[in-house]
Amino acid sequence: MNLEEKTLEKNTLFSGRIINLRRDTALLPNGATATREVVEHPGGVCVAALDDNENLLMVKQFRYPYMEVILEVPAGKRDKGGEDPLTCGKRELKEETGATAEHYVPLGELYPSPGYCDEIIHLFAAKGLTFGETCPDEDEFVAVEKIPLETAVQMVLNGEIKDAKTQVCILKLKALKERGLF
Amino acid sequence: MNLEEKTLEKNTLFSGRIINLRRDTALLPNGATATREVVEHPGGVCVAALDDNENLLMVKQFRYPYMEVILEVPAGKRDKGGEDPLTCGKRELKEETGATAEHYVPLGELYPSPGYCDEIIHLFAAKGLTFGETCPDEDEFVAVEKIPLETAVQMVLNGEIKDAKTQVCILKLKALKERGLF
Repeated sequence: MNLEEKTLEKNTLFSGRIINLRRDTALLPNGATATREVVEHPGGVCVAALDDNENLLMVKQFRYPYMEVILEVPAGKRDKGGEDPLTCGKRELKEETGATAEHYVPLGELYPSPGYCDEIIHLFAAKGLTFGETCPDEDEFVAVEKIPLETAVQMVLNGEIKDAKTQVCILKLKALKERGLF
Repeated sequence: MNLEEKTLEKNTLFSGRIINLRRDTALLPNGATATREVVEHPGGVCVAALDDNENLLMVKQFRYPYMEVILEVPAGKRDKGGEDPLTCGKRELKEETGATAEHYVPLGELYPSPGYCDEIIHLFAAKGLTFGETCPDEDEFVAVEKIPLETAVQMVLNGEIKDAKTQVCILKLKALKERGLF
């Protein structure tokens, strides 16, 4: 079954600080055309960092679109120009929590909302932590919390942790540990 | 630590078929102001439906923002006006796979990309399936696949399944089954 669509026309409607917006015309598999709204994003990286006592480093942050403070793993945007994901992850972990990690293991990629957004989030687990100063971005306010991994798993399963990348990181990290792979 | 931001001004820049775009001015905790780009979305629902042989119903779908065919659990947008998530989930499962489920269990909510998007995706697990005709939307082309749950878990862990809601549904469904809760 042919599922592929082709771009007939690309139209950038907005170029912002974080995202751009396009409205394209696409050719569908049945020969019809349709408009496709696309949010462009440079991509993100997040790091699930575990300290020597099996605590996960997490950050509480006000998320403006929800007008709500939520709990997440440290994360940030890749610099434009395709910054290396691991370099970005190390920087974001340091900026938000002050931590530097000795060991990193990739936890795969995540497509947050593939119907209309092209963002790819790269996930990492990290351990072997040492702590220094935090250095958050100017307009970023975060509060660091250490949460036992088992508590974090329960918070995902009972719905207290809602952020997509954080849910996936915690459940994958747990699965890796059960398999002796982290 | 006060993390809250307040809206000083809301500006809708684009109203589309699936999303709207705002660029607001926000008051930060330190008294400074910042622009906040917000993608508005009516919200989504997805259903991880398991047949009597422990196969998960999945759909292959071309996702235009990535120009790629990816594997997901059946899902769709809530009708505007705040459609009940379970009603939406039942409709989308039927439309995309032809299946009707006897039992539904909520798997919580997911915030796909909380930095710039207000979408909430409601997750459900379902079982007790009976099959009828599919009835996809006019501009939607999907291929149904049945994947053993254990295979799906492996595909999440090895990075083959990238969609956020699908990764979370599969790992949560697996955890529920391990705990005898589904």
